[in-house]
Amino acid sequence: MHPFSSKPGETVSALGEEKLITRIRRWLGPVSPPAPLGIGDDCAVLAPSKRAQAVTVDPVIYGRHFDDAVPPRAVGAKLLKRNLSDLAAMGAAPVAAVLAITLDPGVRIAWLEQFYRGLASCARAYRLRVIGGDIAQNTGALAASLTLIGRATTPRMLLRTGARAGDHIYTTGTLGGSLLGKHYRFTPRLAEGAWLAARAEVRSMMDISDGIAKDLHSLTPAGARAEIDATAIPISAAAKKMARGDNRPPLVHALCDGEDYELLFTVAAKTNLPAFDKKWRARFPKTPLARIGRFVPLHAPRAPGAIDLAAHHGYEHLAIAR
Amino acid sequence: MHPFSSKPGETVSALGEEKLITRIRRWLGPVSPPAPLGIGDDCAVLAPSKRAQAVTVDPVIYGRHFDDAVPPRAVGAKLLKRNLSDLAAMGAAPVAAVLAITLDPGVRIAWLEQFYRGLASCARAYRLRVIGGDIAQNTGALAASLTLIGRATTPRMLLRTGARAGDHIYTTGTLGGSLLGKHYRFTPRLAEGAWLAARAEVRSMMDISDGIAKDLHSLTPAGARAEIDATAIPISAAAKKMARGDNRPPLVHALCDGEDYELLFTVAAKTNLPAFDKKWRARFPKTPLARIGRFVPLHAPRAPGAIDLAAHHGYEHLAIAR
Repeated sequence: MHPFSSKPGETVSALGEEKLITRIRRWLGPVSPPAPLGIGDDCAVLAPSKRAQAVTVDPVIYGRHFDDAVPPRAVGAKLLKRNLSDLAAMGAAPVAAVLAITLDPGVRIAWLEQFYRGLASCARAYRLRVIGGDIAQNTGALAASLTLIGRATTPRMLLRTGARAGDHIYTTGTLGGSLLGKHYRFTPRLAEGAWLAARAEVRSMMDISDGIAKDLHSLTPAGARAEIDATAIPISAAAKKMARGDNRPPLVHALCDGEDYELLFTVAAKTNLPAFDKKWRARFPKTPLARIGRFVPLHAPRAPGAIDLAAHHGYEHLAIAR
Repeated sequence: MHPFSSKPGETVSALGEEKLITRIRRWLGPVSPPAPLGIGDDCAVLAPSKRAQAVTVDPVIYGRHFDDAVPPRAVGAKLLKRNLSDLAAMGAAPVAAVLAITLDPGVRIAWLEQFYRGLASCARAYRLRVIGGDIAQNTGALAASLTLIGRATTPRMLLRTGARAGDHIYTTGTLGGSLLGKHYRFTPRLAEGAWLAARAEVRSMMDISDGIAKDLHSLTPAGARAEIDATAIPISAAAKKMARGDNRPPLVHALCDGEDYELLFTVAAKTNLPAFDKKWRARFPKTPLARIGRFVPLHAPRAPGAIDLAAHHGYEHLAIAR
């Protein structure tokens, strides 16, 4: 659905702020608790938390994170799931979200309704509340930014730091070609993230948003480099399909495409890997798991078949104008 | 300063994402703690909280909340202060902020640096940390949305609900004409808000963002109406100045202009008002306090000199296209 309409009666300009907020609360339904726990006071009141909390923020912008081909329900869900994936990467569980939206007055009410209903449906599925928000007008704009607050599911959060030379590198799912649909149809790996955070042999974790060629640097400890086995990379069917269209190898798509929303994590060198893999398969029989390599000392000779990650680049957000 | 430049070397497009984030962290300085407490991991880790927490979100948008006449440092400070004013209205104290910014690639680095430095300076003054953020590119855009997390300073938060017929209505400061400069030069009433939240006779509170003609409805209990004494409204010098320019009465500016960022609160009917006022003056000798009226039963006859608030309208955010 195209989000804009030239018929004023179909657009948010026909509502004004108060009526629009009333509608939004209706579209959100039970996901939107009454004030002061939700929308309607100067702030939303959030309960005390005995556990450490995790906070993240990510937007969706028309023309950038979605276009007319993505159903508005899926746009709302994507906005929340992008942030849920960040919580998953810490091993945290979602609690509450606040949503700031910037709208052209010509945005269709029907588009916005589906956007909020998709967001609400996803929030119900992951048991979190939408506790606050802001609506602002801006000519030509359709952008929403969601801040998500979660809490630790175990005594620790799983950070990007913590890996050591010798540690093994794992990824969930399959990689590449997200633009063909996964970028909004993905399932954030919350259960997997919490399970991993509870296992002492797992030392660091992140979600893959810009391709592992770029993201893996964030996990790499000082004095080490990632030795990645090209044959172990779980290449998605979508990466292969895209490769047929653009003549870039499927492996390059798997390494460099953005928006995989999979978990990338490291396991201590001495771990019994077959036992680890077996526990994973017992708990997550439907989530693929691949051991793709390990960290080696910086000047260790390159193994045959190993990928030179420095030759690849992940997704660069602000590179367009260069 | 005009935020955009046609010389690519002066703009964020010359930096790319990673370098831009490095700069932003430098501009924020000590206000930006190292990961995982701040920018640099998938989420920021926020400490457990024994007290109830307050969450709010507000944006600044170019052409809407600021223009070339507002120094970029002041824009950064305004973004934070708008949110601080919402915390003040609950009697809460700030803890941490996350910032989502949407940029055209042609935004000047120099503008952005001053924006972040202004935000950082304000964050230092109010002792909060900027713990996370997101940068996204969007053609033609310059907008930032800040989510602020605070904690209660007393066992209760002061809500918009709670007033009863008979209760007195107070406002801090002076009202109207904010566009002449106060809209970014104001001081959020955090100390005043916390002091009021600690006093049992204060029953409800909000900050004035859209003019009391509109905002007062949010405090009005069912079965009551606000009886406001026109002569008691603290009209600002700016409201009088604007009135000379546009021939609307100063009182109308005081009632209807947006962005006052003052506290509007109610005090229980039986309170010893002279004693209350005296305590206020002892604690906040520089913050004007005005008792502007009280809530009366809905069908009580209108007092002579009372304002009919229904005849006035506050600032309406999405009304432009109607």
